[in-house]
Amino acid sequence: MLAKDMDLYIAGGSIIRAMFEDGLRLARRVGPENVHDFSLGNPNSPVPPEFNDAVRAVLDEEDSSFVHGYMTNAGYPDVRTAVAEDLNARFGGDYTAENVLMTAGAAPAMNIIFRTLLDPGDEVLVFSPFFPEYTYYVRNAGGVLRPVSADRRTFQPDPKALRAAIGPKVKALLINNPNNPTGAVYREEILRAVADVLTERSRSLGRPIYLVSDEPYRELVYEGAAAPWLPSLYPDTVVGYSWSKSLSVPGERIGYLLIPSSCADFPRMFLAAMTVARTAGYVNAPSLMQRTIRRCLDVWSDVGFYDRNRRTLCTALSDMGFRFAPPEGAFYLWLKVPDGDSAAFVRRAFSHNILLGDGTGFGCPGYVRLSYCVSHERILRALPAFEMLANEYNLK
Amino acid sequence: MLAKDMDLYIAGGSIIRAMFEDGLRLARRVGPENVHDFSLGNPNSPVPPEFNDAVRAVLDEEDSSFVHGYMTNAGYPDVRTAVAEDLNARFGGDYTAENVLMTAGAAPAMNIIFRTLLDPGDEVLVFSPFFPEYTYYVRNAGGVLRPVSADRRTFQPDPKALRAAIGPKVKALLINNPNNPTGAVYREEILRAVADVLTERSRSLGRPIYLVSDEPYRELVYEGAAAPWLPSLYPDTVVGYSWSKSLSVPGERIGYLLIPSSCADFPRMFLAAMTVARTAGYVNAPSLMQRTIRRCLDVWSDVGFYDRNRRTLCTALSDMGFRFAPPEGAFYLWLKVPDGDSAAFVRRAFSHNILLGDGTGFGCPGYVRLSYCVSHERILRALPAFEMLANEYNLK
Repeated sequence: MLAKDMDLYIAGGSIIRAMFEDGLRLARRVGPENVHDFSLGNPNSPVPPEFNDAVRAVLDEEDSSFVHGYMTNAGYPDVRTAVAEDLNARFGGDYTAENVLMTAGAAPAMNIIFRTLLDPGDEVLVFSPFFPEYTYYVRNAGGVLRPVSADRRTFQPDPKALRAAIGPKVKALLINNPNNPTGAVYREEILRAVADVLTERSRSLGRPIYLVSDEPYRELVYEGAAAPWLPSLYPDTVVGYSWSKSLSVPGERIGYLLIPSSCADFPRMFLAAMTVARTAGYVNAPSLMQRTIRRCLDVWSDVGFYDRNRRTLCTALSDMGFRFAPPEGAFYLWLKVPDGDSAAFVRRAFSHNILLGDGTGFGCPGYVRLSYCVSHERILRALPAFEMLANEYNLK
Repeated sequence: MLAKDMDLYIAGGSIIRAMFEDGLRLARRVGPENVHDFSLGNPNSPVPPEFNDAVRAVLDEEDSSFVHGYMTNAGYPDVRTAVAEDLNARFGGDYTAENVLMTAGAAPAMNIIFRTLLDPGDEVLVFSPFFPEYTYYVRNAGGVLRPVSADRRTFQPDPKALRAAIGPKVKALLINNPNNPTGAVYREEILRAVADVLTERSRSLGRPIYLVSDEPYRELVYEGAAAPWLPSLYPDTVVGYSWSKSLSVPGERIGYLLIPSSCADFPRMFLAAMTVARTAGYVNAPSLMQRTIRRCLDVWSDVGFYDRNRRTLCTALSDMGFRFAPPEGAFYLWLKVPDGDSAAFVRRAFSHNILLGDGTGFGCPGYVRLSYCVSHERILRALPAFEMLANEYNLK
């Protein structure tokens, strides 16, 4: 009696619930402190105290009807201006409020831009492995997500594979940098090569291939790595951002979609995106959070929190003989499964009370994802279990 | 280069912007205090002070990582329980957290339920006139919205017309009570007749026709009117709610979708809706607002604020000779245009600095919508202009 494709949706949900319930059962059996859960990507660096202070200041200093009221669907003009100016200062753009559509996080930003761009059957390319929700975001707009394998050694984009994959139905390339699930931070020279491919193929197709950049992890980078600013490399780039990770406020749903004036069909594209946002029921980004963010543009949660985990984990796993490309961003480590059977690896890890994400779910079997957005104590407590797992695979 | 149907979206947006800009030009010419703007449905009863107090209490008393963090996509369990228990106390249900999906307002609730229910080409019926965004909400899910004329005298539902309209493709009836744009509050005996039609036609079709009740104005009722609780009249009813109007916080995007256990295909329907919500990018309702609402379930903004406007306006317009069914709910008055030409009426009103909504946009030409969610002073200041308009139409 429901829509026919809901079977698929419910099945997808069931796998996640089954994992979650396995974890709960395990916790009941061995105690929650003995479950080494590296399966969830929930930011857990503490919320900076400046954030709650900003909420209080908004309530104290701004008019309630204004703070909690409707505004234009794209967001409060002063907030959009502040976001634009912050981007200008950091990345050397010339953005204004007219380029910034405030959204309830990066997920709506992605849904909005795909609905704005795609006709039924249009294709969006993405480097694999990739965040599995992308499949839905593109399908919600009637499109089809087509993975293109990233370089299997570095997990950087592969411009040559991209060129081969761009057929007449391709409308956009989706890039997630820093990357979930690999933790890779894409290098500028490689992204320039990607931009060259897009430029060349756009010319031969006689229309722009848009670059959609999903950047919720932009601020989570380590050892001097930095995610290049894609709009400065390729004019037809739109950027989705969320403060979920940089301020550790994922429940609040606050972010933006940036549509630079350099995009083909600007400003029509912005008007369309704004209308899509309203009619899809997003209406506007939560108002108190918009007012709060305006006061927090120079505040970040502590990246050192994740970096300590990263360093401990990388050193220990490497010493145990595991293989992986050292992550430079986000809070994920992408581990190569010794014998290539990632489903079996996840099961064996579970027998040591370790919860991991099977790479198959990210479009890349033979690998597992470790989310290290956990307490440092959990990392330390998990190391003996990883050691046992390494021994089972005779890694040394 | 954008999706082909974006022309339609942009055109729709252009009409609204053109009206808005006409209003701005008028304000520059005659001064904003002399523009009688009755075109916007923005709640403006003051935000109850308890609301900001509740936000502060959440910040002071609850853990920041919890308050701003991810929770299950359906919302915080304790918030969902509190909402369920509040509904039980008020409407005599037996709801639990398992029936409550917290959403970013009623608009996402509608989008989520239609995506959950509709296959491409499925039809949703609605009594006209109706809120124009419904067309998009249904179309976003691949469905088609089909208006059924309400009783043209009372603007109550017309069960006979409904029976005639239910063909084999009809999956649901959408009801908005209290009603935008008419201000009608649907009567229980009429809704019972509607439920009887749905029951009878569901039986003959061999599958349930769902009743989708959009109730953002539920608390805005006058003179003892009350919107009947539809799930107690028809088992296959789902309810979308928003606190936008009852607390005057429309920017915050907080509401819920209630899926009673009596619905056919429960709990599968709830699981599907929850997955739709996540994959459509809504992810979860804003977390601080969820925590706040839990503390505000017994708080309402002042309905008397709108009632005073309503009484002043009804008395004055009636004395001038205008005709309308006196509104009992929401904050809209639905005026019959004397000669039936609503586009001309809107233009003539504009020449007296009055901004109105043409009924054509609500699927019902020959009427105009007055939104009386304005200050009482604005009502009083507008009366001479309405008097002049009445004289032009020789109403007395």
